[in-house]
Amino acid sequence: MNAIIASTSTIHGSEYLAYLQPTLKEHFNNIKELIFIPFARPGGISHDVYTQKAQEGLAALNIKVKGIHEFKNYTEAITQAEAIFTGGGNTFVLLNQLYQHKLIAPLQDAILNRKIPYLGTSAGSNICGKNIKTTNDMPIVYPPSYDSLGILPFNINPHYLDPNPNSTHKGETRETRIKEFHAYNSTPVIGLREGSWLKATEKDIVLEGNLKARVFKQGEIPYEVAPNTSFKNLK
Amino acid sequence: MNAIIASTSTIHGSEYLAYLQPTLKEHFNNIKELIFIPFARPGGISHDVYTQKAQEGLAALNIKVKGIHEFKNYTEAITQAEAIFTGGGNTFVLLNQLYQHKLIAPLQDAILNRKIPYLGTSAGSNICGKNIKTTNDMPIVYPPSYDSLGILPFNINPHYLDPNPNSTHKGETRETRIKEFHAYNSTPVIGLREGSWLKATEKDIVLEGNLKARVFKQGEIPYEVAPNTSFKNLK
Repeated sequence: MNAIIASTSTIHGSEYLAYLQPTLKEHFNNIKELIFIPFARPGGISHDVYTQKAQEGLAALNIKVKGIHEFKNYTEAITQAEAIFTGGGNTFVLLNQLYQHKLIAPLQDAILNRKIPYLGTSAGSNICGKNIKTTNDMPIVYPPSYDSLGILPFNINPHYLDPNPNSTHKGETRETRIKEFHAYNSTPVIGLREGSWLKATEKDIVLEGNLKARVFKQGEIPYEVAPNTSFKNLK
Repeated sequence: MNAIIASTSTIHGSEYLAYLQPTLKEHFNNIKELIFIPFARPGGISHDVYTQKAQEGLAALNIKVKGIHEFKNYTEAITQAEAIFTGGGNTFVLLNQLYQHKLIAPLQDAILNRKIPYLGTSAGSNICGKNIKTTNDMPIVYPPSYDSLGILPFNINPHYLDPNPNSTHKGETRETRIKEFHAYNSTPVIGLREGSWLKATEKDIVLEGNLKARVFKQGEIPYEVAPNTSFKNLK
């Protein structure tokens, strides 16, 4: 495994993928062509428009980006990919499309066995957990299952947001939602703040970026961990 | 139909159900006993604790509250109920339980044919729409379908939250999420702010409370509507 699993593609006041450029330069070293999975369609944009955006975000690395939708055979696109990037958007739509096109097993094989460089942002990171039950997204389509790639032995919650002490809004906080998840599920959850990412390899799964992350385990009080923390043994 | 479909049970700085007391006094006029559906378990609390909370919230109206979980036969509890209140919490958990206990048809019958007074708050309101695809909740359990009671000819989005112009957070706004919903679904959505409710009868479906609501239709620019607006013809 050789994956960058990022909370977000974009941080405030900065361009698409800009904050990740030094990391991606190393991660995609020697990669000439990358397969982009645009299925999550943020804001409902088309696959072509989204792929163009990914191309622009990776232009400085001299990588040619091809959208998976440009291929006749989606499975072949994955099995022959040098590198894969799954963009953010709606996690339900993304996972539904992966099931519809029977891409779960090919993606697992590419990431876990062929060990090609993978990049996920937001929804593209959510699907790296055991299931999508800790997504923040609206369930606008009904996927055949919530089980996802499971290349991580836990779930992540991207765009993790701390409770706002000044809020008058009575909707659930993110922490309350994850607590509710743990009323029914034992899988640990990492709340990844915007600007954080996980670097997942065979040897280790490490928190990168400058921010702490928040770890939620069933029946335990959530706790903060610093950058460089290893999650290898988090189960 | 005789339903109060509220965005939230509780508004900022006020007790559980307090802001709805005058409305509920009229709505539940002459009701002696009410069946409470505690399945949504906010924060993972038990059915007993949640039912006790509902009892306290309705104490001033001299209504005896019984949790549906106290009955041997859940269907009978619904078919014989004088009035029903479904509390908020997690919409996926709630809907999943309704399917598991085969309560969808009995609830539709009680509300649409027997016309007993119904109260829904938050998740208990979400299920009154055509489906739960516009819930804000985390998909912590996988229900057999997203189709819900469909006693309204549209969906609602409870706890509707306007975009915060000062936010630096890059997660989707509520409006973006509903826009994504409309990339795949044609059902209109009413964004109900906290403090708003719908009064739904045979004759009309009317926005009540002091706040405007926001209406989202596929392919149209969202618009605001004032209290007392009728949604009878919103399809």
